[in-house]
Amino acid sequence: MLKSFIEVDTDSHFPIQNLPFGAFETDQGEVHLCSAIGEYIIDLFVLDEEGLFNGPELNNQFAFQDSSLNYFMSLGKSAWTEARETLQSLLSANNETLRDDPLLREHIFKKRADVQLVMPVQIGDYTDFYSSEQHARNVGSMFRDPDNALLSNWKHLPVGYHGRASSIVLSGTDVYRPKGQTIPKDSEQPVFGPSLKLDFELEMGFLTGPGNKLGQSISVHEAEEHIFGLVLVNDWSARDIQKWEYQPLGPFLAKSWATSISPWIVTMEALEPFRTACPEQNPKPLDYLNQPDRTTFNIQLDVLLKTEQQNEPHQICSTNFRHLYWTMAQQLAHQTVAGCNVQPGDLYASGTISGDKGDSYGSMLEITWNGNNPLSLPSGEKRSFLEDGDEVIMTGFAEGDGFKVGFGEVTGKILPAIE
Amino acid sequence: MLKSFIEVDTDSHFPIQNLPFGAFETDQGEVHLCSAIGEYIIDLFVLDEEGLFNGPELNNQFAFQDSSLNYFMSLGKSAWTEARETLQSLLSANNETLRDDPLLREHIFKKRADVQLVMPVQIGDYTDFYSSEQHARNVGSMFRDPDNALLSNWKHLPVGYHGRASSIVLSGTDVYRPKGQTIPKDSEQPVFGPSLKLDFELEMGFLTGPGNKLGQSISVHEAEEHIFGLVLVNDWSARDIQKWEYQPLGPFLAKSWATSISPWIVTMEALEPFRTACPEQNPKPLDYLNQPDRTTFNIQLDVLLKTEQQNEPHQICSTNFRHLYWTMAQQLAHQTVAGCNVQPGDLYASGTISGDKGDSYGSMLEITWNGNNPLSLPSGEKRSFLEDGDEVIMTGFAEGDGFKVGFGEVTGKILPAIE
Repeated sequence: MLKSFIEVDTDSHFPIQNLPFGAFETDQGEVHLCSAIGEYIIDLFVLDEEGLFNGPELNNQFAFQDSSLNYFMSLGKSAWTEARETLQSLLSANNETLRDDPLLREHIFKKRADVQLVMPVQIGDYTDFYSSEQHARNVGSMFRDPDNALLSNWKHLPVGYHGRASSIVLSGTDVYRPKGQTIPKDSEQPVFGPSLKLDFELEMGFLTGPGNKLGQSISVHEAEEHIFGLVLVNDWSARDIQKWEYQPLGPFLAKSWATSISPWIVTMEALEPFRTACPEQNPKPLDYLNQPDRTTFNIQLDVLLKTEQQNEPHQICSTNFRHLYWTMAQQLAHQTVAGCNVQPGDLYASGTISGDKGDSYGSMLEITWNGNNPLSLPSGEKRSFLEDGDEVIMTGFAEGDGFKVGFGEVTGKILPAIE
Repeated sequence: MLKSFIEVDTDSHFPIQNLPFGAFETDQGEVHLCSAIGEYIIDLFVLDEEGLFNGPELNNQFAFQDSSLNYFMSLGKSAWTEARETLQSLLSANNETLRDDPLLREHIFKKRADVQLVMPVQIGDYTDFYSSEQHARNVGSMFRDPDNALLSNWKHLPVGYHGRASSIVLSGTDVYRPKGQTIPKDSEQPVFGPSLKLDFELEMGFLTGPGNKLGQSISVHEAEEHIFGLVLVNDWSARDIQKWEYQPLGPFLAKSWATSISPWIVTMEALEPFRTACPEQNPKPLDYLNQPDRTTFNIQLDVLLKTEQQNEPHQICSTNFRHLYWTMAQQLAHQTVAGCNVQPGDLYASGTISGDKGDSYGSMLEITWNGNNPLSLPSGEKRSFLEDGDEVIMTGFAEGDGFKVGFGEVTGKILPAIE
């Protein structure tokens, strides 16, 4: 097995098999792109400046001397592979270049705990899909009809909507409880105030590399070539605002006050060893969505809740990315089939990922069945939805033989609404 | 009345009272910001380089040496006023600076017909509202219930949804007929193919200047200070795709294949003389939307259709911006009330603008009542929806005493779907 000269704990999310991409703020206040290994981040700006990305795709491209990953992402798969191979080679136990150069190592490696990670990509557009069958069934059962929980289009196309890009924030950003209009039960007159049904949504999202021109489309068979990597996504939601506003044009303010993503983008290549089977699709989708040898990735996902009265976060959900009914390739083929242009750095989120049992549901809405079965916490507290001071921690990883390829965490705490 | 040394026809959209902002491609292939007067564009890059923007707000800001208006827009109202006053002064009949310097004039003025206008702003996020009561009533009557055409939330909040920013194109860009899933009448099995119900939507949109921080909001009373100016918007739509996809998360592919905007941003200051009364609001909206002295702008809007068999465009709609139920200030206050952050260069479109008669409806859907009453054209052709080769031309202006403040046109032709 590939080993680095940097010691990496077997429980670490960041062995030499991962090498995700991110960004951090230097002591001089500049943004440098970086990767991660074990407890360290790797300053890619310095590596690039030293001329160590010298393969045919990246030599003299200065791809890592930029302040966002967008340009690197636009270069496409052969550049991504070359960057990964270069990094794996430079970090491997038998390569002297960094291993035996203490001065260079000092410039390149910094303790992850000592740096501030920042948004590594300029997200142009953000789409949020709705691709977990169990989640769609749960919501349909609660709000429409348990016997007809899925709408008639759901199994024919990956339902999705445009999200708000400006309010995507990095893990660790605390978020203010939103205010808005809601409709009290049995009333026709809305009221205004802080949301009383604040929720998280456990999702994953993929970021695109090279896109398509307006009017053209990306075939389902080629779609994965356009995907750079994945992040964890917490698509914060205000259920009471959503209920009143969403007809007929969909969720708007209920979802646009904040969306949190994990700081590390784990590449498709790092996830390759973790391919696994997909849920069967019946009925067979139309040709442009039909992917005969569909695979997805086996990524364990957990949600933990920490209230101000608890000392430790408490796990409230455990599920897996592989449950999603629609694959990323199908989502991207659908996104572009009418000619919508995708660009490097767009974010495409999965929708809430729920398994088939209560402890695998990816939102408070489902876990507490719209507040009807409040959650009991070890502190003795109960929760129907999120309260001020609550912190939501999502984590995810794929498990290899003796190593993990992980996403770290996406965290966020609810601050009281601004007066 | 203010006069320029440049001759301007009384029918021109671009007298010295307008001075909209745009961008063009120079002979060297660079993007320069510009304004317009009569038949000419004004190269703002050159004016700025010559040091002619030398007031306290713009001196040494190089605001017009950028390739987009975003930075200038971020500077706020006092900078916008100063730029306008500087331009009006430099162009006025009694100012010698440009008038008597033929060499400088040659560098600064170019015939509008000789230059290629380009996108003047990087649009970060795009929201599309649904703020015309008559349009909402028409759609509700057609697809739901004529006796209950408006949904219960419509008069309480400016309904809107997130649009797709990447596919916003400049006037003159031809657009490909989108393909997608639709559901045949009385069938449960969708089919795939080019949209058969292609439509335009006559809208206007405002672009924001300084925004708000995430978690904060913009009050309805201060909202206009954040608005830089307006454009014409054609929000192309595929009605058959929309009908099948839009439940429960709203329009997605039906609207994301193209949205066209006019090349000139007409500023709020240029529109100031054209304030007029708003439709009354009953019930009174909640406090955060309540704007006791609401005014809007008197902007005449026309839509013309040119088919391949016609020599001349034929007018198919004539309406006015003032019909909108919700003001821009209310839209912006609503957009931010839950804490969503607005940024310089965002686009907020009105939704289809329809008057109360068939010849003032702002979409083919309404004009032909979903294809039931096809439109007869002078060429003898009929149209239920748009056909390949059809060109849609929208225009708009406010009429002053002896001059117009206009938006020019937003045009686009339908190309056949790509095979």
